[in-house]
Amino acid sequence: MPFSLSPKDSSFYPLFTASAENLVEATNVLSDFIHDHARREELAGKLRELEHAGDQSTHAIFRQLNTSFVTPFDREDIYNLASDLDDVMDFVEAAADLVILTGLGTLPAEMSQQTALLQRAAQTTAEAMPRLRTFKDLSEYWIEVNRIENEADKLYRRLISRLYSGEFDALEILKLKEVADQLEEAADAFEHVANVVETIAVKES
Amino acid sequence: MPFSLSPKDSSFYPLFTASAENLVEATNVLSDFIHDHARREELAGKLRELEHAGDQSTHAIFRQLNTSFVTPFDREDIYNLASDLDDVMDFVEAAADLVILTGLGTLPAEMSQQTALLQRAAQTTAEAMPRLRTFKDLSEYWIEVNRIENEADKLYRRLISRLYSGEFDALEILKLKEVADQLEEAADAFEHVANVVETIAVKES
Amino acid sequence: MPFSLSPKDSSFYPLFTASAENLVEATNVLSDFIHDHARREELAGKLRELEHAGDQSTHAIFRQLNTSFVTPFDREDIYNLASDLDDVMDFVEAAADLVILTGLGTLPAEMSQQTALLQRAAQTTAEAMPRLRTFKDLSEYWIEVNRIENEADKLYRRLISRLYSGEFDALEILKLKEVADQLEEAADAFEHVANVVETIAVKES
Repeated sequence: MPFSLSPKDSSFYPLFTASAENLVEATNVLSDFIHDHARREELAGKLRELEHAGDQSTHAIFRQLNTSFVTPFDREDIYNLASDLDDVMDFVEAAADLVILTGLGTLPAEMSQQTALLQRAAQTTAEAMPRLRTFKDLSEYWIEVNRIENEADKLYRRLISRLYSGEFDALEILKLKEVADQLEEAADAFEHVANVVETIAVKES
Repeated sequence: MPFSLSPKDSSFYPLFTASAENLVEATNVLSDFIHDHARREELAGKLRELEHAGDQSTHAIFRQLNTSFVTPFDREDIYNLASDLDDVMDFVEAAADLVILTGLGTLPAEMSQQTALLQRAAQTTAEAMPRLRTFKDLSEYWIEVNRIENEADKLYRRLISRLYSGEFDALEILKLKEVADQLEEAADAFEHVANVVETIAVKES
Repeated sequence: MPFSLSPKDSSFYPLFTASAENLVEATNVLSDFIHDHARREELAGKLRELEHAGDQSTHAIFRQLNTSFVTPFDREDIYNLASDLDDVMDFVEAAADLVILTGLGTLPAEMSQQTALLQRAAQTTAEAMPRLRTFKDLSEYWIEVNRIENEADKLYRRLISRLYSGEFDALEILKLKEVADQLEEAADAFEHVANVVETIAVKES
């Protein structure tokens, strides 16, 4: 593989953007999955494909990292950014898989709302990735993702409160918690992505 | 915002100390919360306020980081130290909130003991923060926090053993585990703070 | 303690190898623990001893780090590698302890399979540690550990699916999940070790 000699290798930006756009699609599929009961098997399969595509993007970034002399920002940060984007995908795919594995039917409305927040976080992240080139207006991005994560946290607690309200038995609570926790972890993982971007910006400042 | 030009900017130390002292107060409020059944709503509100104050401290550190040319230690370590102190607060606040959300009444004695350990970890951490200036006697601090975390771990396992002893039904176990896990994570998060301090000291050695 | 002055201090490699070989032994003991019902108390005691030995290795690495002027790779990476190896041991030991604490009897076959994967990950890791000296053939190691972690993940999901199949009641599911989660976390922790090695290799490339 040829070594890149350009002092600020620009080929990372499209890879990060592709990785984040993959998350936009995955969170849209997850939203359909939650609402469209009849297509769950099909849509879970679609999420497995998107997770596979995400893995390919992540490894493309790692390969690029291994063949670049000079990188636009610290190697560790590129590595962390790629890994954290990958983590989001893993949680999104796992949430859908756990719905199927536990045999859950209709899901509480709070889970649609959790998913809607994930869709917003993915959109915000995908829009920010190209701005890594100039570091312009990135603070708006991480403030917005932190705001979304705070909302997701409140929603998660409202869901927990409902789970223990007496409406569900222990077995149902256990099953629903499996899924709710993955959705909550996906929101946290979006915040980790934003934290890495903030760390990069702090170093460049 | 004016840039600080002093070669070893000293304004981080009071911010870290303030952040850790906030944890001393939060763990004291948590202790009252656990014992004083009638004041739980009020004390959970107090914890939400302290968490909000903690967020302010964390962001003051981040802003300071963005406007300092030279920092007393690596930017990433300052960032990690602030984030990990923030994590402790989040777990402490979440523990109280989950008691209310799950509608738990009297809590097992092990949870008072977990909280007492958190109070000691907070006290030890707050006393160590000003010593970051000179790096003197910091090893005592992280050894003590590691010791506390080991005790917390043993206590957590004793609690788990009791939860499954037949004394509680599945629903109660689920609720109590929600709270116990947050208290355990708070103890772990204190250890993460100590690990960052150890990392900083290793680099300076 | 005398300072080491050799430019690339070689004494870290045997310490990492010892730490990983300790994990080979621990995963072998865990396998016996799972299959040999009558010896569980004795084997859990053996795991506690191995965890104690692991802690000693970890602290030997930290002490070495504090007395070395020049390290073979970044201090943070040495620190992370030692910590992540230590994490694996903690999860392995906790899995066995939780079997005893929750009073579980015969365990599902999937848990033997999870343990077999941990044995393979430990073996692969122990064989790779001496190769840190030359950075030769390390990519084979982390690819293999990633493959094992993928298998472990699939197995974990198959186990979750079985737990909710109706075969177990809520209390049994809770107990079995405690153990399954530790085994899953141990597999993840092996992947974290491999990620640190990959990070080191990326920097050296």
